[in-house]
Parts: sequence; structure tokens; C-alpha cells
Amino acid sequence: MPGIGIVKETSTGERRVAITPDAVPRLRAAGLDVLVEAGAGAAAWFPDGAYGRAGAQLVGAEELYARAAIVACVNRPLTDRLRRGQFLVGLLDPDASYTEELAAKGVMAASLDRVPRTLSAAQPMDALTSQDNVAGYRAAVIAAHAYEHFFPLLVTAAGTAPPARVLVLGAGVAGLSAIGTARRLGAIVTGYDIRPEARQEIASLGATVLDLGSEGTGEGGYARALTETEQRALRDRLAGPVAHHNVVITTAKVPGRRPPLLVSEAAVKDMRPGSVVVDLAASELGGNVEISRPGERLVTENGVTVIGAGDLPATMPAAASLAYSHNVCAFLAHVLRDGVPAIDPEDTIQFAVIFTGGMA
Amino acid sequence: MPGIGIVKETSTGERRVAITPDAVPRLRAAGLDVLVEAGAGAAAWFPDGAYGRAGAQLVGAEELYARAAIVACVNRPLTDRLRRGQFLVGLLDPDASYTEELAAKGVMAASLDRVPRTLSAAQPMDALTSQDNVAGYRAAVIAAHAYEHFFPLLVTAAGTAPPARVLVLGAGVAGLSAIGTARRLGAIVTGYDIRPEARQEIASLGATVLDLGSEGTGEGGYARALTETEQRALRDRLAGPVAHHNVVITTAKVPGRRPPLLVSEAAVKDMRPGSVVVDLAASELGGNVEISRPGERLVTENGVTVIGAGDLPATMPAAASLAYSHNVCAFLAHVLRDGVPAIDPEDTIQFAVIFTGGMA
Repeated sequence: MPGIGIVKETSTGERRVAITPDAVPRLRAAGLDVLVEAGAGAAAWFPDGAYGRAGAQLVGAEELYARAAIVACVNRPLTDRLRRGQFLVGLLDPDASYTEELAAKGVMAASLDRVPRTLSAAQPMDALTSQDNVAGYRAAVIAAHAYEHFFPLLVTAAGTAPPARVLVLGAGVAGLSAIGTARRLGAIVTGYDIRPEARQEIASLGATVLDLGSEGTGEGGYARALTETEQRALRDRLAGPVAHHNVVITTAKVPGRRPPLLVSEAAVKDMRPGSVVVDLAASELGGNVEISRPGERLVTENGVTVIGAGDLPATMPAAASLAYSHNVCAFLAHVLRDGVPAIDPEDTIQFAVIFTGGMA
Repeated sequence: MPGIGIVKETSTGERRVAITPDAVPRLRAAGLDVLVEAGAGAAAWFPDGAYGRAGAQLVGAEELYARAAIVACVNRPLTDRLRRGQFLVGLLDPDASYTEELAAKGVMAASLDRVPRTLSAAQPMDALTSQDNVAGYRAAVIAAHAYEHFFPLLVTAAGTAPPARVLVLGAGVAGLSAIGTARRLGAIVTGYDIRPEARQEIASLGATVLDLGSEGTGEGGYARALTETEQRALRDRLAGPVAHHNVVITTAKVPGRRPPLLVSEAAVKDMRPGSVVVDLAASELGGNVEISRPGERLVTENGVTVIGAGDLPATMPAAASLAYSHNVCAFLAHVLRDGVPAIDPEDTIQFAVIFTGGMA
């Protein structure tokens, strides 16, 4: 039987695993031997024993790469171990040089960040959505944990604690997930998105829609990139609402570009002591918040905690891995026949996702 | 005018403050000058400026103790600064030696941990309740933050994430607050208490009642202390339910005694990897969980995160201080006439709370 290898991730801070034990029987039923690199799931709380009990074989990295016809990963694995004819599936964020590198090796590769998100048949494979959903939930929990007042309105004998006022900027999957979670916890939530069609979704979650008049729908359901001048104007219009909220969660990303700068240092300085800002767009390129730094938590002189949270799925690896594993399996179910990739250039999903080998 | 001094707390890790800025106008209206030690509220996100704007005077410690007729604190302040005739209000946890010490100094002192909790007129002064309410909320947020799956049931294109199964042991104020918060976040919650009358309260929050047959109501609405044999039997009966939950929050305390040991090391070893235990009773004397250590977070070999969380109000100082400040002000409103304590030994609340000076 052809084998699928589940590698142990090697990127710093990455705790997810591509396939979780619950998926092993399903992969075996699809005609695959399941080879798991020892320790692959440990950081996501899926111990080797759980894979073994589910019917997987635990192997070393060398054996895995030697035997596996399919390699499943989250981030790019070390290229030197891949060999001709292997089929690599992951969140590979392919660029030209990576595509060339894999093509030169004779590796066929599919990247689930290329799933056509608006195609309903592709939704079970949509890893960006599943991971953004985790990130949004996590952002709200992190905000509640960092905020040292209550989120809900509490009326007790010791007085009334007002509910937290939470502002979520960007109402894509992550933003809506953050809105829903903050609402669950009892906060008063306001959402903002430059795409007019997002307003209905914000309202459907019981949040207030912040309307600043600017509009900007781009391609594929994403916000379009704003010009520098537009960004500055938006930043100015957001400064007032930011200052009047206790918690601000920013989630605005534009694929392949620097995230828009929505919250200036001055706006953070106008927030009250004890306020919390969580920036899901924080990256080495910059984020939505001028002073956020990826992976860091800082407290401003005026007592605002600013959390650069650009990589949240890796910090909630159990939930993120379960969902991602489901995405990988759905893609494999779509592309495999008897455990072997059945390449079809006419297939919309394959055409979008596979970027070297049979396609591209 | 007589003055009330709000001291900066000196205990390690204590971030609360006895009086928050919102209470300053109320205290002044009651005939008091309000003296705030510089930096007293900073760690709870109440900066000096907020006190100043509210009408308080910012002073150094020396001036505060020299001028204040009333000293308000959270924990015991340094005794050497107190002087004859001062009235000290705090969570003083008085024992015989502390009572003698203050009496020798000629200090009158009231401890809000002695408020008669079952007396409805005393409820606005009930600091143990207000702080336990914070602790329970905080415990659920800490658990959600430490647990790396979702709390709510989520049905998405990437599969169904089951809700977290949360077990709360002890359904006093803290336990009920934890139950309510975990429910808000979408978890399936089960509560347990040895007091039969607590079961209705658990059920009223939408949680399942765990019935193990044992009963033990003691004095003042507290659980009675169990014997060693009873504790062991209860521990054995709890081991199965503990192992079948993803999150266990323990809140069982008995005033003045070592907390009952409810969750053995073996029970934690039977929990699944990725499970979380939060022990609100963790203290130097021990807690509800055999392996918890106060202020520490440990991960067992089988992947269970155990958090010793005996001092949660100090880790959520903004909410805790606001509620506590309300308690202090309610007590002062009860006891002061024109800014001066009007001692009345016939008064049930005063009799319970004041432990040296006019009473005791």
C-alpha cells in the first residue's frame, strides 16, 4: 500500500500537526499506510500512543521520507529530504523560488492556502478559514485573559461591573470568530470592516456595526488594498472609536501584502489604562497596530497592553490541528484514487491548489 | 476633616488597591479627606492622576500614616507605621497574636473577612464573596486560555469540534462564578458540592449536578470539614468523573483549615493529554489537588496542565479592587458618623467585624 507520512514540524514555535489520530482510520480506509514521525503530535497533545492505537506506524524521519508516497505537513518541511515522485501537502505559501525548487526535485506539491474559498465544494479543505476561525476565538480568549476587568456585565451586592467594550477591526473569518467569542463572554462588541457586505455578518452575531463611510471590496471576497492616503484617513477616523473601547482586536490582512496600519501609536495612547489591544496581523512586515511586535506583549506608559498575535493557531495547536487535519483529509479524499493522486487539470480545486508536478 | 488613607499594598504579588478612584467623591461626601499613597492603584490600572481628578490628595507613606484617621488596605499593612487611635479596615485575617499586636498599639481594626455572610444587610460589605466572584470568573478564563481546544461546540466545514467538558468541584461563590463563565463560553459544565442545597444553584446555572451521595453542610452555609476517611472515599468517587472531563476547576475551602484533598495524583494521571486542572484552593498548606503548587503551572508526564491558582483576585486586580472598594465603602457608610467611627456594640455587623479597639 502507498504510505502517507506525517512529519514533525520544524519551524520555531509551530506546535500543530498535519494529521490528528482521529483521521488515521479514515486514511487507512482510503488505501494508505499511515506513517507518523515519532513525536509529531506531542506538542498538540496528541501522543504517539494515540496514533499507534488508531492504526498508524511510528517511524523515524529517515524511514518516513523513504517510504511515504504522500507527505503531509503544516509548514514547509526540509526540502533535502523530499524525493522524486513524492506528493507534498501543506500550508506551503508557495512563491516562484519554492515552486522551482520542488519542481527541480520532481516533487508534486499542493498548498491548502490556495483553496478557492468561494467554491462551496472546496470549503471542507479551506485551511485558511479553519485556522482563522481558531485565531479569532483565541484572540478573544487572550484578550479576556489580559483584560483585568470582567467581560460580562455583573450586578452584585458589591456594585455593578460594566461590560467590557470590545472593538473588532476586520470582519473576515477571524474577526467574526473573535466577535462571536467576545459576545459569548458577555462583552458589548462593535465590529468594523471596509467591505459593506461584512456589515450584515457583524450584525448577525449581535454586534454593533461601526460605519465610517469608507468602502473597499477587492477580489475573492477580500478587502482591497487601500492606498497610503486612504489608510491614513481610515486610521484617523478609527482613533476615536479605538479610544472609547476597552479591548481592540485587529484582524485585517490583505493576501500577499503588508497588513494595513489601522491603529496608530497616538490612538493607543488615548486608550484608558488597563485597556488591551490584540493584533492578529502582527508580523515581521508590520501589523494593524503601529506599536505591536509579533510574539511580544508590551505595556505602554499609559497602561495599555498590546499583544502582537500573528501566529495564534500555533498557540492553540489541539483545535487548530484537528481542523487542519480535517482539511487535509478532505483534499486527499478529493484527489486520491486507491491511495494514489489522480491528477485532473480540469478540476478547479486541483488546478488552484497543486502548484508543481502535474499542474502549474 | 478626618482623613482616610489608602495605602500601597506591600505583599508580594498583591496588585489590588483598597479604594478605587470612583469611590473618592463618595468618601468626601461622607466627610473624609481622601489621602492616597502615590502609586497605590497603579498595579490595578488606577493611576495617581485618576485619584487626583476624583478629588484625592496624593501623599507619601509617612504623611499618609501621620494624617489618616482611617487606614484602608487589602492585606495587613506594616504595623510599625500605625498609631494610637487609628481605625484600620482591610482583609486582615486576624488571629490572636495580630489582635494583641494592634490592641497594644491602640489601633481599632475591622476585618471584612468577618462580615456575617448570611445577613442580607451585610452583603454589600462581603469582601470574601466579591473576591470569590472574581476568582471564579478568572479561573474559567484561565482554564479556557490554558486549554488548547475550543470551549464551545463548533460545527464548521472543517468538521465538528466537540464542546469542552468542564467539572467544577465546590459550588460556593467562586464555583458558581466559574460554572457561569464556563457555560457562557459554551462548555458542557458539571458541578459538584457536598452541600445538598448547592445542587439547586448548580442546576439553575444550566450545569449538570454530579451526585455522589455524600452530604456535608456545616456552619454559616459552608461545607463542613470532612474526616480523613470521608475525604479519601470522596476522592475515590471523584476519580472517575475527573478522568472523563477535559477541564477540572476546584474551589473547595473550609474556613481556617487545610482545604480538602479532592483530586489525587492518580486521578490526574487518568486524565487525557491536553486536559487542564485549575486549583483555586492551592496554598502553602496544600490545595484540592494533590500535585498543585500555589502560583505554579506544571504539566504532568501524561500532558495535563495543573495550575495552582490560590490567589486569583490579585491577578485580576482591576475588577477585584472595584468590588472590594465598594465593600469597604459600604462598611464605612455603616460605621461612620460625620467621618468618625460611631462604635455600637449592639450592632451585629460591627460586632462581627471589629476585632480590637471598641470591641472584642
